[in-house]
Amino acid sequence: MPSPVDSFVKQNESRMLEELLDFLRIPSISTSPEHATDVARAAKFVADALTAAGMENVEVIPTGKHPLVYADWLHAPGKPTVLCYGHYDVQPPDPLELWHTPPFEPSLRDGNIYARGACDDKGQMYMHVKAVEALRSVSNGKLPVNVKFLIEGEEEVGGESISKYIPEHKEKLKADVALVSDTELFADGIPTLCIGLRGLVYLEIEATGPARDLHSGMYGGAAPNAVYGLIELLAKAKDANGRILIPGIYDDVVPPAATEVESWERLPFSEEGFLRDEVGSTSLTGETDQSVLARVWARPTLEVHGIAGGFTGSGAKTVIPARAVAKVSLRLVPKQEPERVLAAVKRWVTANTPKGIQTTVRVLSGGPAISVNPDHPAIHVAAEAFAEMLGKPTVFIRSGGSIPIVGEFREYLGIPTVMMGFGLPDDGLHSPNEKYRLQNFYDGIRTIAHFLERYGRTRQ
Amino acid sequence: MPSPVDSFVKQNESRMLEELLDFLRIPSISTSPEHATDVARAAKFVADALTAAGMENVEVIPTGKHPLVYADWLHAPGKPTVLCYGHYDVQPPDPLELWHTPPFEPSLRDGNIYARGACDDKGQMYMHVKAVEALRSVSNGKLPVNVKFLIEGEEEVGGESISKYIPEHKEKLKADVALVSDTELFADGIPTLCIGLRGLVYLEIEATGPARDLHSGMYGGAAPNAVYGLIELLAKAKDANGRILIPGIYDDVVPPAATEVESWERLPFSEEGFLRDEVGSTSLTGETDQSVLARVWARPTLEVHGIAGGFTGSGAKTVIPARAVAKVSLRLVPKQEPERVLAAVKRWVTANTPKGIQTTVRVLSGGPAISVNPDHPAIHVAAEAFAEMLGKPTVFIRSGGSIPIVGEFREYLGIPTVMMGFGLPDDGLHSPNEKYRLQNFYDGIRTIAHFLERYGRTRQ
Repeated sequence: MPSPVDSFVKQNESRMLEELLDFLRIPSISTSPEHATDVARAAKFVADALTAAGMENVEVIPTGKHPLVYADWLHAPGKPTVLCYGHYDVQPPDPLELWHTPPFEPSLRDGNIYARGACDDKGQMYMHVKAVEALRSVSNGKLPVNVKFLIEGEEEVGGESISKYIPEHKEKLKADVALVSDTELFADGIPTLCIGLRGLVYLEIEATGPARDLHSGMYGGAAPNAVYGLIELLAKAKDANGRILIPGIYDDVVPPAATEVESWERLPFSEEGFLRDEVGSTSLTGETDQSVLARVWARPTLEVHGIAGGFTGSGAKTVIPARAVAKVSLRLVPKQEPERVLAAVKRWVTANTPKGIQTTVRVLSGGPAISVNPDHPAIHVAAEAFAEMLGKPTVFIRSGGSIPIVGEFREYLGIPTVMMGFGLPDDGLHSPNEKYRLQNFYDGIRTIAHFLERYGRTRQ
Repeated sequence: MPSPVDSFVKQNESRMLEELLDFLRIPSISTSPEHATDVARAAKFVADALTAAGMENVEVIPTGKHPLVYADWLHAPGKPTVLCYGHYDVQPPDPLELWHTPPFEPSLRDGNIYARGACDDKGQMYMHVKAVEALRSVSNGKLPVNVKFLIEGEEEVGGESISKYIPEHKEKLKADVALVSDTELFADGIPTLCIGLRGLVYLEIEATGPARDLHSGMYGGAAPNAVYGLIELLAKAKDANGRILIPGIYDDVVPPAATEVESWERLPFSEEGFLRDEVGSTSLTGETDQSVLARVWARPTLEVHGIAGGFTGSGAKTVIPARAVAKVSLRLVPKQEPERVLAAVKRWVTANTPKGIQTTVRVLSGGPAISVNPDHPAIHVAAEAFAEMLGKPTVFIRSGGSIPIVGEFREYLGIPTVMMGFGLPDDGLHSPNEKYRLQNFYDGIRTIAHFLERYGRTRQ
């Protein structure tokens, strides 16, 4: 028999969807100065929606860039406090010509909402608001826990303002746990909680050789080549099996627990399907003594994201380039300290820079890996609520990516984060034709509401 | 005692200079469509100058792009025929802000003419015209040899029209030797003939990995990276001493003759000066068992001229790139066949492409190395004329670069080329503030005239 909150959501599905579509019509592209008023409009939309849901102390907080939105409801004494986080800004929709329908005119097809931000993160963030509304509607305006909202408009451009705000407002943001819906189900229909994120050290490595570009006929064979010097250096970073050759990189790496590895083995994962449908290449790469999931979740990696140097126009120009630059990052796993990894990389670069070449390493961003204890009461009840809603046991996975806000909640507020996302692996985040499954939007609202109900019952 | 031709040049220096300055004022930038009429104006200037010098059958020959200019004087029966080649087009002057005086307003400073094209090649080409004028003026309108001129306007953009014209006009262009003044003195005051040019195979190597750019968090550790795959491949092309590791590359390489090596050892060459003043780096590179001059003149080399792939904007973007491309060339030495080298490179690329990566090799241009026999009568008398003019023995050097026209004269007309240039190593060809030493302009006219006189005396 459906619970009162389930019935409320069922009866209000079409209204809630219409509200989300209005939200999606706002082109809140945080990276585009010409969309600044749209971003502000989206912040106002969030604030109004929180007010309408019965949240109190709603604030649109100006920052150096795009506003934060805060709200709370703190009338459940003795009950835990949940800090709901999400973001109302979106990625640019380019390349526009690849969209089947315009990115900011949401289109319903095949049970999906197609729009920029449908999944990342407007659709997922709005579930939190609607879950609060549903709970209050069926309980005389009461919530089973205390709730705070902190919603940002700069997630897609680095999140600078919220990173500054959190350490300056620790008391205001005090909570027992944070709730973030910005991840995905491991596969369609599988209740999934993410309990681990890799960390990151992102670098720019620049190589210089001769004082200026030289003629390769006149000097080729004797003059250092900055592009080739950078190639020689970077090629020494990994062996043919993707094992990182930088001394010390694996020193602090802790293998995942046997129980975690066993649970990964039970996941519906097909290496062939992953290669064919997601990677789209002839072969996977990486450490052959590690499973694919271990490689992307539990092992440090080094990737070159881009490289540029010398002549790259059409036709033939015979220069020995004076300068080349590469973007390089290492993903980190729990226990690896970014500073220690950075120091190891810098030592390695110095030791391996070829003759005649000078190298510079610049740090662009970084943060440690995150792991959440699956035995934390909030994670425990979130798993129960999720399993109940989808009718299958909840799986605990890691993500190979990094969500910096989770690290900030841990560092400044001392709280873990429930990463309970309802996206699907093929939702096309940051890509043309981003979509969000309608059913997942409704299921998400219900699941979050049940999670909050169950979490409230953990303290009498 | 100066010869009649020397006296004539001396008396006419200022007029000849004024004419050259007018020529330099025409911005005949062959790569710019907006300068097409200027290029045509420069062709007309050359034709008029040839007519004024007493050449006959002067033609401005339309082509698919920029005109060729032809002229001849064939009234020396029994004497050899010299085909004078040069080009009247110039490189773009960018970056303009680095010029001390405007590139097309020639400025005389410190004994130099500063202008785009002053040395490359208007100033040097015009010496041929003035040498003919001087010889006719002192010999009742007669020349000591038969002379043909073929001047092009596309040298800086690939020379397509002349490459098409030569094989179609073998009879018209028939000659005993070609004369090209588009090289430089080994050092100021050293009479220099270039008798060897390296060949070239210029390639574009493209690597593809995943079907599209992937998120490095989600896929890093298991998905192939096109940029890194290309880096891994290219790093295997050479060892740390610049020795090419592609099997078969050195098979046909013939070391320079002992006499040639000895002559190089007598050249005023300072490795320290080369590193400091020309290369501008901390160290030279390349094969440690070869002298620097051997490395740049007599050894095959492999250079990466440019590379591009993935994210190279400002900031941090965590993609695993789907595609990367590099421009790569090999310089060849005599006896190496471009087709054989290309086949070796293709085999090597296939054998060394990393797992999960696909590679494609495209050929952009190429041609074999050239060597000229220093015992050819024309080279012999050119060396004598040069030595007499500058008062020092003529040195025979090679150039590490490639001059495709020299190969075409050899291939289609079966003739060697006298490469007798009067540029200096610091003339700044293709760079801002290109210059040409005034004295070298006058000395060049005289030397060329003496060369033609001496060459005429080789056949009675």
